[in-house]
Parts: sequence; structure tokens; C-alpha cells
Amino acid sequence: MYREQIKVLDCTIRDGGLINNHYFTDEFVREAYKALSKSGIDYMEFGYRNSKELFPTKDYGAWKYCDDEKIREIIDGIESNLKISIMVDAHRVKEQTFAPAHESPVDLIRVATYVKDIDKAIDLANRVKNLGYEVSVNIMAISKENEFALVEALDQLAQTNVDVVCVVDSFGALYCEQIEYLVKLYKNHLPGKEIGIHAHNNQQLAFSNTIEGIIHNANYVDGSLFGIGRGPGNCCLELLVGFLKNPKFNLSPILKFIQDQMLPLRKEIEWGYILPYMVTGMLNEHPRAAIAYRQTDDKDKYAEFYEQLLEGLE
Amino acid sequence: MYREQIKVLDCTIRDGGLINNHYFTDEFVREAYKALSKSGIDYMEFGYRNSKELFPTKDYGAWKYCDDEKIREIIDGIESNLKISIMVDAHRVKEQTFAPAHESPVDLIRVATYVKDIDKAIDLANRVKNLGYEVSVNIMAISKENEFALVEALDQLAQTNVDVVCVVDSFGALYCEQIEYLVKLYKNHLPGKEIGIHAHNNQQLAFSNTIEGIIHNANYVDGSLFGIGRGPGNCCLELLVGFLKNPKFNLSPILKFIQDQMLPLRKEIEWGYILPYMVTGMLNEHPRAAIAYRQTDDKDKYAEFYEQLLEGLE
Repeated sequence: MYREQIKVLDCTIRDGGLINNHYFTDEFVREAYKALSKSGIDYMEFGYRNSKELFPTKDYGAWKYCDDEKIREIIDGIESNLKISIMVDAHRVKEQTFAPAHESPVDLIRVATYVKDIDKAIDLANRVKNLGYEVSVNIMAISKENEFALVEALDQLAQTNVDVVCVVDSFGALYCEQIEYLVKLYKNHLPGKEIGIHAHNNQQLAFSNTIEGIIHNANYVDGSLFGIGRGPGNCCLELLVGFLKNPKFNLSPILKFIQDQMLPLRKEIEWGYILPYMVTGMLNEHPRAAIAYRQTDDKDKYAEFYEQLLEGLE
Repeated sequence: MYREQIKVLDCTIRDGGLINNHYFTDEFVREAYKALSKSGIDYMEFGYRNSKELFPTKDYGAWKYCDDEKIREIIDGIESNLKISIMVDAHRVKEQTFAPAHESPVDLIRVATYVKDIDKAIDLANRVKNLGYEVSVNIMAISKENEFALVEALDQLAQTNVDVVCVVDSFGALYCEQIEYLVKLYKNHLPGKEIGIHAHNNQQLAFSNTIEGIIHNANYVDGSLFGIGRGPGNCCLELLVGFLKNPKFNLSPILKFIQDQMLPLRKEIEWGYILPYMVTGMLNEHPRAAIAYRQTDDKDKYAEFYEQLLEGLE
């Protein structure tokens, strides 16, 4: 699939950071930046710009906050056309500041929101758009939203200068036909805006759902290296690059980074096809029950987990 | 997706046996048979009926041959509605015998063939059909076949009494649009026959491609427990059962079997998302290069493997 407009965003550090409280070494982040630059990826998402009041710095690594100066420290001296993205939770905006875009290493700000917080999201989106950033709004947990409320949110976003609105399958619950439906819904209600897709891999559908989004004209697509991300993780960037035929992409630096950096990391932290997350995805539930279960001695009692969850939902 | 006509076939022992020369313990096979029976699966494929001349019994486990009496030994005393399938390679028929169906525990014989061997496949299919078996013909490696030859084979099959013809993505190379195209092609050329789908998971597309097949009216779908199969393995049966809404299915016995039997097995033999297999799938190549590479000390040098393979294809 070659379509020049398609932009690929790597969310390794941002979504992967949800597993390790954003404690990646500077070397890891720098090597990722180098590999993604060489491979022709469009955006690298460094993490969240979170409130230090809400998330004390003693408990988290640097990529929970993504200070401009910290990003500069990483990228300094590396030749790159890679744009830089950070994410901000609309419902957790406190004292965070944003420099004018031309004074910041950040190019794209992605505002993550629930439907109920869409006014907060639009407020923040307008603010950072006025500072000169590219802006995406990512509405989370839509597989649980009623469509009336979702459409209302989309119609509000249509009135803004936001560049991209992203279909987010937070629970890894959506099948291809639902992705098609949602991408078309977003396109219809957001004339002139780009649509993005961020899929989770609970049911091994993150890559195929991303392809489905691309088929229906989503142009902003997310992947992560070796699929890292909370629980089952995300669409594997290496699969995405293998699929997209844009000659600017180069798979080798990505494979090299995976073998050198991701294999050792996976020995320390788990993500991927893990059955409790498959079960939460299948049941369209937040992964929190699976996350908790994986901390217990029963972590591999899949049938018990499934039955407990079913019972709890009755 | 609830469609009464959909039949689910578990190929755990047959395809999984390609990793361990079909050495599964009797207990493992019996427990699988029990779990699949309880979960409402339609068919369990026990293995191949291979020639003992071509494959000496000193080198392989019982499921390379699937003698009727061996199958009886396993299922004896277990209450079950599960039908039993075996596979036969059309190009490897030698001295193997087939009892009349009513004297055999086997219900379904699946003839695996390449397009070039379609006449051998039809000869064998007719023979076992006349003995009273249900018969499927599985044409392998179709992602490398030219369509003219493939269509000719389908048109020949249309003239037979074969019940099912199966779309097989041997190399795990096909994307959803190609699955749609092929399933429709098979349907068009095989009026009155059922279409099946057997997908490989090189690119994490086995489940989504199986769904794609179902959407376009493939009614015979293959899965394996925890996705076991050579290299990347197959569509995960647990995902398939989670997707299919037929109330006859029950996920718990499957999850229980995975936790008790598949987790220990996976410590001994590897399958799943392993990058050299992703690379062969992406390049539409037989996995043999990846299988060989995984035996070497360089097994995790993904970038080198990719570059070597690309070079070899030039």
C-alpha cells in the first residue's frame, strides 16, 4: 500500500513507558531515535507531558514529562528528519507549560481524551494549536461509548483547527468491520481533517485493524517497536513498515534495534500475546483486571480469570 | 459472527507436529481431545497419514501416520461429538491404506496438494470419497501460484465430489484484500462446495485473515491451541472461539488446556511471532530459510537475516 499522505508514528517510548513508569535509559531512547530516523519513520512520540503535581518526579522516568530540554539532550547531534510528538491527557492538565512551537523540539501534540472530557480536550488543542504545533485529538475507549455522544464530540472537533483525529481502540476489542465503520464515521463528521488509527493487540488484530484503517483512508498510523505497549501492546512498527511500500522506509534499522535493544528489554518487562489481555479485549473491558491478575501467583490460570471476569460482568 | 454452517477444525496435533516430528505424548493428545470435545469444536485433526516407507517410524511419533487403531486408543472411553480429521499429502501417497469410513474413527480426510499435483489430489480425493469419508482438498502455497493454473485446478475440483476446498496461506504472506479475492475466486469456481481457510501467523494476520474468510462465506475454518504450528504457527483457536458467537462453543476448556499443557510445551519448542518468520511472510517466501536460521547462533540477528534473504532473491 503506497499512499504518499500516510504518516507513521512510533509510540514505543510513550506507550511502552506505561509498563515501566517511563524509565527508559537515555541510551535506549537515543538509539530508538537514531533507528527511527534511519528507517524513514515520520514521527516519534517521546512520552507524555504530564503534571509533576499529579505524578511526582520521584516515581517516574523523564518520559512521563517530556520536558523540551530533556528531548533536546537526547536528539542533540543526530541527523534526522523525524518529527517529534508528545501526548497530553486532557483530563490531567494542571501546571504543564508549552513553549511556542518554534522554540520547542516538539512538532506534534496529541491530546488524549475521553468523550466526556472533549471540552477540556478542545480547550487544550486550541491552546497548543495557537502556539504553532500540529495537533491530534485521540478519543479513547470508544468501543464502550454510545454513538450519539461520540458523534457529538466529533461534530465539536469539526469546528476546530485540529489537524488529526485518531480512532483509538483502547481495549483491543474492535474487529475489522467496526474499524471500517468508525473510520468512515470519523471521515464523514470531520471534513478536511486527517484520520488516525491507534490499535491495541489484545486479539492479535492491531496490525490488521491498522491496515483496515488505511484501506478506508486513515493516514496517520501508530506502531511501536516489536509491538511494545501496555499489556498486549500495539501494532508492530516492523509489520507496518513491511506493508507500506513507500520507498522512503527502510526496515533494517528497525530490525537491528529490535535485536539489540528490545530483546533484552523483553526479558525484564512483559508485553505481547498474553491470554488475560486477550480475554479483556474479547469482552471489551479495560485491561486493568488483567494487569492486576498478572501480578498474582495465579497469573497463568487463564480459565479461572475468564470465569471470574464473566461473573463480575453479570 | 454467528452462522450455523461454520465448522471449526483444530489442527494442533497435525500442524504443531511439524515442529516436534509428531512426538506428542498420548496424555497430551487425549487431554486435547477432551478439551476440544468440551469446548464444542467440530473437528480435531490428529495428524498426517504418511507413508512409513517415506517417513520411517523410527524417526517420527505416531501422529505422522495416524493409524486408525492408534486414534481409537486415544479416544476410547471419552464422550464426544468431535469429528476426527487426518491429512494426506497428495504427492506422498505410497502404501498407505484407508479403511471404509464406517470402519474407521476418521470422519474427514484432507488432501494437501500443490497446484502441480492436482491430478494426484483428485485421484486420492475420489478414492477416499468413495470409501465414505468427508473430503477436503487444501491447495498449498497459492500466494506463489499464477492465477491461470490455480483457476484450472479449481475448475477440475468443481467436477469432483469433494466437499470442501481450502484456501491455504502457506507462507503467511497474504493481506486481507487478497484473502477476500481468493475466497471469492474459490466460491465462483466451486459452485455448491464449501470453502475453507487455513492461515499462518507470520505477520500476525492469521486470525484477521480467518475472519476475512468468514465474512466472505468461508465456512470451514482452522485454528490451533495457542496458535501452535510450524514457525509462527496458525490462527489461535481461542481467538476464533471468542469471535464466533455460536452458543455451542465454550472457551473455558480451551483456556484450561492452554495453561496446563501448552505453556509447558512452549518452554520446549518455539513457535509464535518470531521475526525471521515475519520476514519470510512479508517477502512471500517459504519459511525454510527462517527455520534454518533459527538453528544457528545468529538466530536473533534479524537485520542480517533480512538483508541476506533480500540479496538471495535478487
